[in-house]
Amino acid sequence: MKLKEPPAIIPALDLPIGEAVELVKGLDSVEDKIAGYKISSLHALDCGLRAAVSELRVFTDLPIIYDHQKGATDIPAIAARQVELAADCGVNAFIGVPLGAGSKTLEGFVDACKDSDLLPIILLEMTHPNANDYLKEGAAKDIFEKASELGVNYFVAPGNKPEKLREYRNWVGDSYITSPGIGAQGGQAAEAVQAGTDYPIIGRAIYQAENPVAVIEEIYKGCKEGFSKR
Amino acid sequence: MKLKEPPAIIPALDLPIGEAVELVKGLDSVEDKIAGYKISSLHALDCGLRAAVSELRVFTDLPIIYDHQKGATDIPAIAARQVELAADCGVNAFIGVPLGAGSKTLEGFVDACKDSDLLPIILLEMTHPNANDYLKEGAAKDIFEKASELGVNYFVAPGNKPEKLREYRNWVGDSYITSPGIGAQGGQAAEAVQAGTDYPIIGRAIYQAENPVAVIEEIYKGCKEGFSKR
Repeated sequence: MKLKEPPAIIPALDLPIGEAVELVKGLDSVEDKIAGYKISSLHALDCGLRAAVSELRVFTDLPIIYDHQKGATDIPAIAARQVELAADCGVNAFIGVPLGAGSKTLEGFVDACKDSDLLPIILLEMTHPNANDYLKEGAAKDIFEKASELGVNYFVAPGNKPEKLREYRNWVGDSYITSPGIGAQGGQAAEAVQAGTDYPIIGRAIYQAENPVAVIEEIYKGCKEGFSKR
Repeated sequence: MKLKEPPAIIPALDLPIGEAVELVKGLDSVEDKIAGYKISSLHALDCGLRAAVSELRVFTDLPIIYDHQKGATDIPAIAARQVELAADCGVNAFIGVPLGAGSKTLEGFVDACKDSDLLPIILLEMTHPNANDYLKEGAAKDIFEKASELGVNYFVAPGNKPEKLREYRNWVGDSYITSPGIGAQGGQAAEAVQAGTDYPIIGRAIYQAENPVAVIEEIYKGCKEGFSKR
């Protein structure tokens, strides 16, 4: 499985499922600018992943990306079962974050994604302050190398750290980067896409907007502009 | 909120929810030896956390401990929302694993637990091979110190590493340790409890047993024996 050619936007549906469904319904006219919708553990906790995916499927055929916040953080066998269950619930891609759990869990997660025909998207670095407190130097590089060996070609890297994005862009080559941490302005998206991200993940800027379609148009314009300057 | 005085067992209900309910129903006669039941993200994915807790509540009043596999691995705001939602779903305690997400996420998670009257249980080290691949030296100690400052007094430490358990026992003092990675034999539980764990978390050894009640009796005997030798 692949996402559409970059750049394209990934709206993060961090909303109660009913509101998420309403939002998706209203974005029909801009789905050519959207790579997929990201749903989260908050939906799973609340109503179950199966129910959340089914409700969204009424209004979109785009890929649904599951962010367990975060998957791939447990023992390898449990990471694999999360993936199998997510696939069975109808998800298309799964974000894995092996920072705290190590290379065997990363391997178990990616292998299970292959077996279940899910697209694994592996996180290299988070966006928030103090995120790396307990990590060793070079953890992101080690994860990138191990994931690449396993055949992963989609990665998550912080959209609010352009200098890091440029570095990750050099590592990944023909593979793809998706990034949270990018605001509502077209200019911010342009900067992040120019620095290396292919798929900005946008949450509040879209779902809290009075006119989400207009926000997507604006961000997408920034994405195209940044992409053309690479 | 507190768990009952140690030692006591925490069965891990890593089963489809219907089977988990059947198991819990059959353990009524040994609930005096059980500190609480651990449920997992697999239940949340499948049917939603709210539904899973409600079904179990029909047959037990013991604490229900939620293991998101793992919580506290995202940005602080999301970690907090996971906690609030878990509390709203009727969970009593939440296992948090900030290894990959850092001290601000740990803080957001624990603060949200306090606000929601949930017991936070913080993981110091995992059980499986290569778990520490991406972590810096001393990460467990840093997490312990930060969590203690925040008022946490329940921790998760590996039941299959007795030498580490002894070290963690010295750190935690009057606080409590709960541990996965302990097998079905009373002797293994005795060794782990003597080394420092207060609450063995037991999965397959209980739920795959022909006679789960007898297994709990046997493990509990080992727990008492190990506890008396501390």
